[in-house]
Amino acid sequence: MAEPALKLEPATRRFVTYDTHPDRYRHWKLAVDGERATLTMNVDEDRGLVPGYKLKLNSYDLGVDIELHDAIQRIRFEHPSVKVVVVTSGKDRVFCSGANIFMLGQSTHAWKVNFCKFTNETRNGLEDSSVHSGLRFIAACNGTTAGGGYELALACDEILLVDDRSSAVSLPEVPLLGVLPGTGGLTRVTDKRRVRRDHADIFCTLVEGVRAQRAKEWRLVDDHAKPQQFGELVRRRVEELSATSDRPAGAPGVALTPLERTIDDGGYRYGHVDVRLDRAARRATITVQAPAEPQPDDIDAIVRAGARWWPLAMARELDDAILMLRTNELELGTWVLKTAGDAARVLACDAALERHASHGFVRETIGMLRRTLARIDVTSRSIYALVEPGSCFAGTLAELAFAADRTYMLALPDDPARAPALALSAANFGRYPMPNGKSRLAARFYDEEAPLAAARAATGRPLAAADALALGLVTAAPDDLDWDEEVRIAMEERASLSPDALTGMEANLRFGPGETMHTRVFGRLSAWQNWIFIRPNATGEAGALKVFGTGNKAKFNRERV
Amino acid sequence: MAEPALKLEPATRRFVTYDTHPDRYRHWKLAVDGERATLTMNVDEDRGLVPGYKLKLNSYDLGVDIELHDAIQRIRFEHPSVKVVVVTSGKDRVFCSGANIFMLGQSTHAWKVNFCKFTNETRNGLEDSSVHSGLRFIAACNGTTAGGGYELALACDEILLVDDRSSAVSLPEVPLLGVLPGTGGLTRVTDKRRVRRDHADIFCTLVEGVRAQRAKEWRLVDDHAKPQQFGELVRRRVEELSATSDRPAGAPGVALTPLERTIDDGGYRYGHVDVRLDRAARRATITVQAPAEPQPDDIDAIVRAGARWWPLAMARELDDAILMLRTNELELGTWVLKTAGDAARVLACDAALERHASHGFVRETIGMLRRTLARIDVTSRSIYALVEPGSCFAGTLAELAFAADRTYMLALPDDPARAPALALSAANFGRYPMPNGKSRLAARFYDEEAPLAAARAATGRPLAAADALALGLVTAAPDDLDWDEEVRIAMEERASLSPDALTGMEANLRFGPGETMHTRVFGRLSAWQNWIFIRPNATGEAGALKVFGTGNKAKFNRERV
Repeated sequence: MAEPALKLEPATRRFVTYDTHPDRYRHWKLAVDGERATLTMNVDEDRGLVPGYKLKLNSYDLGVDIELHDAIQRIRFEHPSVKVVVVTSGKDRVFCSGANIFMLGQSTHAWKVNFCKFTNETRNGLEDSSVHSGLRFIAACNGTTAGGGYELALACDEILLVDDRSSAVSLPEVPLLGVLPGTGGLTRVTDKRRVRRDHADIFCTLVEGVRAQRAKEWRLVDDHAKPQQFGELVRRRVEELSATSDRPAGAPGVALTPLERTIDDGGYRYGHVDVRLDRAARRATITVQAPAEPQPDDIDAIVRAGARWWPLAMARELDDAILMLRTNELELGTWVLKTAGDAARVLACDAALERHASHGFVRETIGMLRRTLARIDVTSRSIYALVEPGSCFAGTLAELAFAADRTYMLALPDDPARAPALALSAANFGRYPMPNGKSRLAARFYDEEAPLAAARAATGRPLAAADALALGLVTAAPDDLDWDEEVRIAMEERASLSPDALTGMEANLRFGPGETMHTRVFGRLSAWQNWIFIRPNATGEAGALKVFGTGNKAKFNRERV
Repeated sequence: MAEPALKLEPATRRFVTYDTHPDRYRHWKLAVDGERATLTMNVDEDRGLVPGYKLKLNSYDLGVDIELHDAIQRIRFEHPSVKVVVVTSGKDRVFCSGANIFMLGQSTHAWKVNFCKFTNETRNGLEDSSVHSGLRFIAACNGTTAGGGYELALACDEILLVDDRSSAVSLPEVPLLGVLPGTGGLTRVTDKRRVRRDHADIFCTLVEGVRAQRAKEWRLVDDHAKPQQFGELVRRRVEELSATSDRPAGAPGVALTPLERTIDDGGYRYGHVDVRLDRAARRATITVQAPAEPQPDDIDAIVRAGARWWPLAMARELDDAILMLRTNELELGTWVLKTAGDAARVLACDAALERHASHGFVRETIGMLRRTLARIDVTSRSIYALVEPGSCFAGTLAELAFAADRTYMLALPDDPARAPALALSAANFGRYPMPNGKSRLAARFYDEEAPLAAARAATGRPLAAADALALGLVTAAPDDLDWDEEVRIAMEERASLSPDALTGMEANLRFGPGETMHTRVFGRLSAWQNWIFIRPNATGEAGALKVFGTGNKAKFNRERV
């Protein structure tokens, strides 16, 4: 697509969209054969997303990851018969050598961080689909598996490594680049693979990595086989894992039709989502529309509606808007979430989602909503929700209010007809867990029974501002007289604060007690990586990441901090 | 003391020791009255630890914190009758205004990070003593309680705020300084106080903070009273909390005599701990000696031995060595842990610690060991333990091997008389939990039953290298032929890597799944803070921390990362 006249990420000078289709993949091949899908990585080194580097040795950049993300989405929706996905390489003797180092070396800090976040989300998405949708993943490492390549393998349920006396798994980031295996590597080595910490310590400082035998002993891989037997090992494990999947046999696929989206200087416009950019105020306003028409509630009609079914269509649009804003609009530090339309239609969709939750297509739609909402939780923007007349923060859409850092709700006690209402449904009590595994309401109330019971008792009825405030569902409920002023000040004050301090504050306040592997990836590993990314030892003139490939040796400030 | 000719922290040019005594306090007063101790903060603004700033408004620097830490230690050991500690201010209308901003503004990154770590450890120590030793803490906030001042209050069991229409609690770091409330603030607001996230969001962006009534509603304080009733409120809560303490009545105090320590260019030498500095190799070797003489095992003799009792004397020396190395020797990136002496005496001490664990003095000694070992867990240095002939990694001292990133043990299968042994005791199975609440062995084995049962079954008998390796207690067991080469290479390789990458890697690998408030302070909050500390928005020429007090406005790069 043509580049519109939007402000571009300076170092890359490229406006990024996340649109792609298997027909247009440059780096991956998706092949489906009954219960097995094979995703073959065969990176075209000349087709990096931005100029300046070659994607050698199956290394990747954001463009490669966008295709991977798209392929997983296709498998989820278009290929419901698939139970096991085999991720492998189309290159000789190399599975994947990780994120492209020259791309990292030339990228701005913001680009690196955003790239890592999307990569993390895609990988967490594999695990999300394994847990919630019975989709199993096997990394068939048919060659060198290094850095981000091994991190991709770690995100799979199983790692199989070819035993050809040269192929190894490795995380050489620390010794080679002076940065961390920061897209899940360190966290999955401990939390998921349970590699003993001293073995992990050796492994993560060893450029050449660990080959099959020892890799299995140290739990770095699940199994290995000689090249001649490798295909057979993979086939066997596909069969065995396939038997553990509860994906429904013979379910119809739903085509993910291209998103309809127009982009102009004012923002992005989709069917159900509208994004307005206010550069002067450094703010984006995202409005999610309730269904404009009644939505089907019997399963056949839902499947017939497919990608046009409001829950899926809305989720895909919102997801795309989040990714576009994150990547292309760094200076819009506040996102204002609004909703508009008929709350009853949203709640009717919730009821349909609930009723058919175990149907394959509906289950995937719930997954799409879950992952989209989870993106908001880890987005480094200040998020305010505004509950105004005409809004429909009900059930699934009420999650937007609970994902926000603050929610303002207009109190109109004397004008009940115009007064906005908030409404809860079963969807608010566990259907969309945050990355910490808790519902947003449970996290909000620290799992305390009293406020959760009160909220549960209020399910289904429209809650005016006073009720919502009393239940602790909204932050403040100014009346007509105060609304404009209070909201305006809240926005302006926010926009005046240090963007970095806000990012750190929000990352801490959004995730209270109770961490999971995924929150540890975002909150612990990424935070350390971000620190390291801006230290001169990594990205200074003589930093390890900067000098890689130049033949020069990195020069370190030797102080331990 | 005179400054020896050691390499000094460049920006501060001061060699720091942690020695002090109530007679020499400049900033705190410790008064004990039966079951109540009162710690009164009355900072002498002219006595900052390093030149360049005035400690106005009860703000603090490392020197103030060193006194606080010392005072808590005195209460633990010298005043066993104390059940409740009241932390309050000797100044008019101000409780504490937090870390001194000008000190932060002039400090190097390393200094800031080290200062924050010690502050965190001291505060975690209050909670540690509340949980393990029945010592309760009340913050009697008799005036403005801001930033680090409120963070200190958060570390107490209860926060009482005077309601004088002006005093407020606040965390103004984000709006005022562009940094985080990073010494526990954000974490305790959620994890401990369970302040709703949107209230916390408002609170942490509000320079003026929140006064008594709303502070209580939002859970930021436990209670408040008018100035005339404030003393009475504190007295009543002291009485009530006192009743919840199991500190033994009438137990004898044990004086914490000054550490005997000599410092020269080669290192520090204590009675039981020796620290050798190898600047060329950028390495410190810490050797802990077993008791040179038999130690008492009946409780009266133990109490008579007091500060000379080996477990306490050794712990105090090791603790001091850790703090000195961390503060003064930034470039010594690897710490080598060794032990020497008679393992039987170490195990005899373990038996005495076990037998008298509920006795007040012994309980405090265990606490001192627990906190000292926990300091190692969060120390940003690579830690290798070497198990060599003549060593005594037994019981409590074996924890050093389990705290290390790697442990090398010499295998001498043909020379059993000279071969080093490792030995486990009950101490290794829960007496010294890490900051994540797990024993080092449980964390090492991810709570898996099989390896833990095998280790437990091996308790008490000397384990040669092959046994220790098979049990997973050591990383590698080279024999005589390989030892020198393998250890040398491991050291040299480590010293060649990026210090920052190592810090991040170790912080991740040492703490696997299962986070607590304290690991979240060190791993999530501190990591974000460290990132923010080196962002231009905080510490650049026009950064918020830099321009504070100059009358200039901070200039921010508005990109969200």
